[in-house]
Amino acid sequence: MVDVGVAADLEPVPGLLPRKIARGTADFTEGPAMTRDQAMAALVIGAEIARDLVAAGNRCLVTGDMGIANTTASAALICAFTGADPAEATGRGTGIDAATYARKIEVVCRGLARHSPDPADPVGVLAAFGGFEHAALAGFILGGAALRVPVVLDGVIAGAAALAAVALAPDAVAACFAGHRSAEPGHAVTLSYLGLRPLVDLGLRLGEGTGAVLALPLVQSAARALRDVATFDSAGVADKL
Amino acid sequence: MVDVGVAADLEPVPGLLPRKIARGTADFTEGPAMTRDQAMAALVIGAEIARDLVAAGNRCLVTGDMGIANTTASAALICAFTGADPAEATGRGTGIDAATYARKIEVVCRGLARHSPDPADPVGVLAAFGGFEHAALAGFILGGAALRVPVVLDGVIAGAAALAAVALAPDAVAACFAGHRSAEPGHAVTLSYLGLRPLVDLGLRLGEGTGAVLALPLVQSAARALRDVATFDSAGVADKL
Repeated sequence: MVDVGVAADLEPVPGLLPRKIARGTADFTEGPAMTRDQAMAALVIGAEIARDLVAAGNRCLVTGDMGIANTTASAALICAFTGADPAEATGRGTGIDAATYARKIEVVCRGLARHSPDPADPVGVLAAFGGFEHAALAGFILGGAALRVPVVLDGVIAGAAALAAVALAPDAVAACFAGHRSAEPGHAVTLSYLGLRPLVDLGLRLGEGTGAVLALPLVQSAARALRDVATFDSAGVADKL
Repeated sequence: MVDVGVAADLEPVPGLLPRKIARGTADFTEGPAMTRDQAMAALVIGAEIARDLVAAGNRCLVTGDMGIANTTASAALICAFTGADPAEATGRGTGIDAATYARKIEVVCRGLARHSPDPADPVGVLAAFGGFEHAALAGFILGGAALRVPVVLDGVIAGAAALAAVALAPDAVAACFAGHRSAEPGHAVTLSYLGLRPLVDLGLRLGEGTGAVLALPLVQSAARALRDVATFDSAGVADKL
């Protein structure tokens, strides 16, 4: 667990890495959510976490994230990177009512209008709309991809981060596995844009790594099938029929 | 591993339960594949295996099967129980060519025409078309359901067996989880008829329990989420927003 920007002071806890960049991001309808320097700092933190996990012997990385209102920021990032319509990329998150949902779409539209994001400047897009978790996850994905380690992505927040990572380094998509397809509509848009097929599709909307963790045994099974299972030839099966 | 009807004499092997009913079934285009007594014997063997596994402490059963040409028998069973058209329920199995595929559909049609199966007589349908593995799996499903233990079904062969089990005892469907949806078209027909949603849908066609085993961690995770994960109330989260 990495604190990259919780809007509170956290006491030291075993397993919690303190990497706080700031206490929360700014309101993206009023200005950029973070500075470019903050976005870069979060990217580097994510890449360093990936590097340290791989150095410790891990052969597969799995994303998880916690954040408040981060499906809104994700929707804005998805629109900025894919060109999707805000009404198509914005979902109901924790289960908001129709009026709040309409306001959420309007907030995304307002942010896009204010920043006129340029997908050719991924750090600028991250700075405009991202949570620190998005930027750190993008760095984490890039770190895993650079080290040739597969990264199993969780839901819509990880997907939005993957769009930033792939905008920075298109080859990074080859390291990404879509753990699942969440119920958030922006996630389907994202997976389709990235050309990723979800391993699990169970209408989950919790986030926090749950969908990616569910898919991990499938990735492990696939690796073991390729490595450990006999072929007809190696097992001496005379005739496959 | 249970030998219910391999068409060869098998030497004793640790883990292989010898329960052979006959050396293979008969040609269903010429007569019933097995006698009613043989079908009943296989049903009982399957139920006994389920009973023994539950008595040994297993809390979830998973189906697997091996058989030669059993996608053809499965297609006939699926048509008999669901009323599906043979062209819709018959697939390419291990990857047969177009001419063999056309012949396979024709064989299923011929079998259905010969036996005029009555889905209200499930044992008769099993006897007409089934492999011993279909009847044993049907008994295995019924055994698990009777003991209130979930049964994770593999692909199209297990699906055809589940149709027989549910025809015998409709409530048994509540014990069934569709591990995956295989590439065999008859499997989609079957799952739709049973009202089961596959946990994994990755275009697999191997069978032999592989799809069910892939889904098992998902079932285990679901059970643990229901039993072990704190709720907002139990964790003392003041406000879910």
